[in-house]
Amino acid sequence: MRIKSILFLFLPFLATAQTNNDSVMIKKMADEIMVNGKAYDLLRELTKNIGGRLAGSPAQQKAAVWGKKSMEAMGADKVFFQPCKTPNWKRGGKDLAAIIEINGKATHKNLAVMALGNSLASKGMITGDVLAVADFDELEKRKAEVKGKIVYFHSILDPKIIITGTAYENAYTYRSDGPSRAAKYGAIGVMIHSLSTAPDNEPQTGVMEYNDSFPKIPAIALGPADAKALYAQARKGRVRVQLQTYGYFLPDADENNVVAELTGSEFPNEIITLGGHLDSWDVNEGAHDDGTGVVHTMEVLRTLKAMNYHPKHTIRFVLFANEENGGKGGLKYAELAKQHHEKMIFAIESDDGGFTPRAIGIGCSPELLKKFQRWNPLLKPYGGEVISGGGGADIEPLPTADKNVILSSLLVDSQRYFDLHHAKTDVFENVNKRELHLGAVNMAAIIYLIDQYGVGL
Amino acid sequence: MRIKSILFLFLPFLATAQTNNDSVMIKKMADEIMVNGKAYDLLRELTKNIGGRLAGSPAQQKAAVWGKKSMEAMGADKVFFQPCKTPNWKRGGKDLAAIIEINGKATHKNLAVMALGNSLASKGMITGDVLAVADFDELEKRKAEVKGKIVYFHSILDPKIIITGTAYENAYTYRSDGPSRAAKYGAIGVMIHSLSTAPDNEPQTGVMEYNDSFPKIPAIALGPADAKALYAQARKGRVRVQLQTYGYFLPDADENNVVAELTGSEFPNEIITLGGHLDSWDVNEGAHDDGTGVVHTMEVLRTLKAMNYHPKHTIRFVLFANEENGGKGGLKYAELAKQHHEKMIFAIESDDGGFTPRAIGIGCSPELLKKFQRWNPLLKPYGGEVISGGGGADIEPLPTADKNVILSSLLVDSQRYFDLHHAKTDVFENVNKRELHLGAVNMAAIIYLIDQYGVGL
Repeated sequence: MRIKSILFLFLPFLATAQTNNDSVMIKKMADEIMVNGKAYDLLRELTKNIGGRLAGSPAQQKAAVWGKKSMEAMGADKVFFQPCKTPNWKRGGKDLAAIIEINGKATHKNLAVMALGNSLASKGMITGDVLAVADFDELEKRKAEVKGKIVYFHSILDPKIIITGTAYENAYTYRSDGPSRAAKYGAIGVMIHSLSTAPDNEPQTGVMEYNDSFPKIPAIALGPADAKALYAQARKGRVRVQLQTYGYFLPDADENNVVAELTGSEFPNEIITLGGHLDSWDVNEGAHDDGTGVVHTMEVLRTLKAMNYHPKHTIRFVLFANEENGGKGGLKYAELAKQHHEKMIFAIESDDGGFTPRAIGIGCSPELLKKFQRWNPLLKPYGGEVISGGGGADIEPLPTADKNVILSSLLVDSQRYFDLHHAKTDVFENVNKRELHLGAVNMAAIIYLIDQYGVGL
Repeated sequence: MRIKSILFLFLPFLATAQTNNDSVMIKKMADEIMVNGKAYDLLRELTKNIGGRLAGSPAQQKAAVWGKKSMEAMGADKVFFQPCKTPNWKRGGKDLAAIIEINGKATHKNLAVMALGNSLASKGMITGDVLAVADFDELEKRKAEVKGKIVYFHSILDPKIIITGTAYENAYTYRSDGPSRAAKYGAIGVMIHSLSTAPDNEPQTGVMEYNDSFPKIPAIALGPADAKALYAQARKGRVRVQLQTYGYFLPDADENNVVAELTGSEFPNEIITLGGHLDSWDVNEGAHDDGTGVVHTMEVLRTLKAMNYHPKHTIRFVLFANEENGGKGGLKYAELAKQHHEKMIFAIESDDGGFTPRAIGIGCSPELLKKFQRWNPLLKPYGGEVISGGGGADIEPLPTADKNVILSSLLVDSQRYFDLHHAKTDVFENVNKRELHLGAVNMAAIIYLIDQYGVGL
C-alpha cells in the first residue's frame, strides 16, 4: 500500500439547502452505522446461535422469535407475526455420488455433491451411464440416448459476464428444470455443475422444480472441480456413476413473517417496506443468503430509532419466512396487504448478499427515475447511486395488492456472491463487517429519502 | 438470492466507430482474462511456493528470478534486472508483550503483538507503566509524564471515513513517527493500535522511521481487540506491561527490479510503465500487498501477447524490488530513467490490493482528464472510470526523471484491505479470483487506450 494515495472517489456535490439538510441527516445515519452499527453482531447471533434455517426446521422457528424480540427491543411501534404455511422439505441424509467405472474399467471416485432442494430420495443406490450434455439443445438432439442414463448438464456460470447475477440467471434453468427435462426422455437421475463461480469443489444446492408430468428423479449438484473433471471424462469416453439421495416432504410447516412497524405521522396509511428473508438452505449458516438482508433491515430500524426519527409514512421492516423453496413469505405479505387494502408505495429488498453496495435499483417510469437520480450526489459518498430496475422474490407479489407499488433492490458488488451461494461456505466468517454496514447505510439513506419526498413526481 | 434480479449496471454507451473498435478490443482482452486469466495461478505460485518476501530475504531473491522467468516465458521482447541496494531488516525473534500489573495487582495477560518494521531490539525484556494517549496533542500536553513509561497511541482508523485508505493515511503518522515522538520525552517503548479495520485481534506490522535525534526505542503494534482493551484499562487505572523485541539490521541487501518490455512500433522511445512491488512484509504471504499488483502487471503482459498486440509505445512491466521498508525499487527505476534520459509518458501502479476495481485515478490537468474521461463508457462495463488523482510509492520518484510523466493508479474497493494489510491474514486464500482478474482487465484496458491515443490533448 502506498503512503500518499489520493483517494477522493465519490465526493458529494451539494447544491441546495434542502439537499444539504438531507446530506447532514444521511451522514449522521452513516456515522451511527459505521461506528455503532449492530448489523454484524446481529448476524453473528443469527448465524452462530441459530444457524441454517430451512423453512420447517426448528432453527427457522427460533429465528422468527429472535427477530421479533430483537425488533421489539429496538423500539418499533409494533412487531407482529404473519403466520404462513411453507413447504417442509428434508434432505434426509448425506447425499452420495461416485464414479464407479470409466470406459468399462472399475474405479471408485467419490464426488462432492449435494441434492438439489425438493429432490426426492433415489430408490436406494442407483447406477447408470452418464450422458453429459452442454445444454438443453444438445439434450434435445440426443434425446434418443437418454433412457436409463444419468444426465449431466454442464451448467457453468459464464465467466465473461461481469455481473455474476446475470450469469446465474442464464444457468438457473438447468437447476430448476433440468431434472424434469431429462426425466421426460427416460433419465433415471440428473447431475448439474453447481451454479458457482468459485475455483473450488464445494457443491451448491438450491431449489429445483419437478414437472408433475414426468417421473421425479433424484437430482444433485456437483462441486465445480468434480463437475469439470466428470464432463471432460464423459465427453471422451464412457463413465458410469452411482448416486443416492434421501429427500422427502413432511406436511407443510407453520412459519411466520416477522413484521415491525414505525407508524407514519403524516401518511400512516402509506407503507414503505424493506426486508430480507429469514430462511436459508440447510447446508450452511445462510449468512449472505440472506442473513445480511435480515440484519440490513433490522439495522435500519435501529438507526432510525437512534436518530429519534419520526417517519411521515409508515415504515415496515419485514423478515420474510420463506423465499428459498416456495416464496411463501412474500406471497403471504402481499395477500394480507391486499386483504387489508393497504397502500404500498415503495418496497425494497436486500437479497444479493452483504457486499459493498453499488447501487439502488428502482423499477419505475423514466420521469420518476429522474427524480430519484437527483439524489445520487447524496448516495454516492456511500457507494450507491439510483439506477433503473429493481425487485426481488419476496416483494414481487406486492403489485397484486397495490399495482402502483414501486419495487426496488439494494445492488451490491457481485463478484463473490456465487462463490458461496447455497454452499457450506456461506458462513459468518465470509461476511465483512464494513461491507455489511455500508449496505445498511445505503438502505437507511434510500428509506429516509423516500419517506421525506414520497414517490410522486 | 432472488431469481428474477435485474442487474444491468454499467451498460456501455458506444457512440463512434472508433470507440466501437476499442470496445471490441477491450472486450476481447476482458474475455481472455476472465476465461483464461493466469493472475490467480501466478499469485498462488508467488504466495504459496515463495511466500513472504521482505527485502533481504532469500524469498525475495527467489521471487525476482520467478518474475523474470515467468515474463520471459510470456514472450516479452526483453526482460532484465535493475540491481538495487535495499535495507535488510530482520525481525530476529518472536515479539512479545504482556500486561503484568493492573492497579498494583500482579497479573499476566499476553498481548497479540508484532514489532513495527525497522524497530530495533529491546534490551532484553523491558517493563514500564503505560501512558495511553489518544493522539499527539495529548502526548504534548502530558510530556512531563512520559519519562520511563511505555507510551501507547490509540491510532485507530476512523470508521466514519468510507474510503479506508484515507483513514489509514490519517493514522499513519502514529506508526511512522510515534516511537521517536515519544522517545523525545523519555519513553522507553511504544505501542500502537494496529492500523487495522478488522474486528479481530491480528496485529499489523508496517514501516516505522526513527528520528536519529532521539533514542531508538522498541515499537510494537497491538492486535485491535487487545489494543482497545488496554486503552480502556489504562485510561481508568495504572497498567504495567513488559515487552521484548529482537529487530536488527544487516548490511544493505542486493535486490533487483524485474523489468519486462514490449518495444513500441511507432514511438519506441516513449515509455508507458505499469507495475507493482515484489517485496512484502515477513509475517504473511504478501498476497494483497502487493502480490496482486505483481500479477496484475504480469497478466497484462500475458494478455497483450495473447492478443498478438503490437504496441505503438514501449510498454514496461515492472516488479519493483523494495517498497515496504525503503522504497528503493522505485527510486532505482527513476534514477536509471533519468540516467538514460528516458521519456516517461505514463505510469500506473497497482498497490491497493486485488479487490473489485472501482476507478483509474489519473493525476493530470483538468483538460487532459476530460480526454481520459471520454473513455469512461469503455471502462464502466468492467467497473472502472477515470477519476482525478493518481500515483503510488513506486512511481512517485519518476518525475525526477521526466517531469511530464503522468502518474496513475488502479483504485479498488477499499473496505477489506486494512482488515489484513501487514497482518498474518494477508494470504492467498483471502484473494478472490474474479475480483483479482477484473483488476487486470482494468489495467489492460487503460494501458491499451493510453498506447492507442497517447497522452496529448
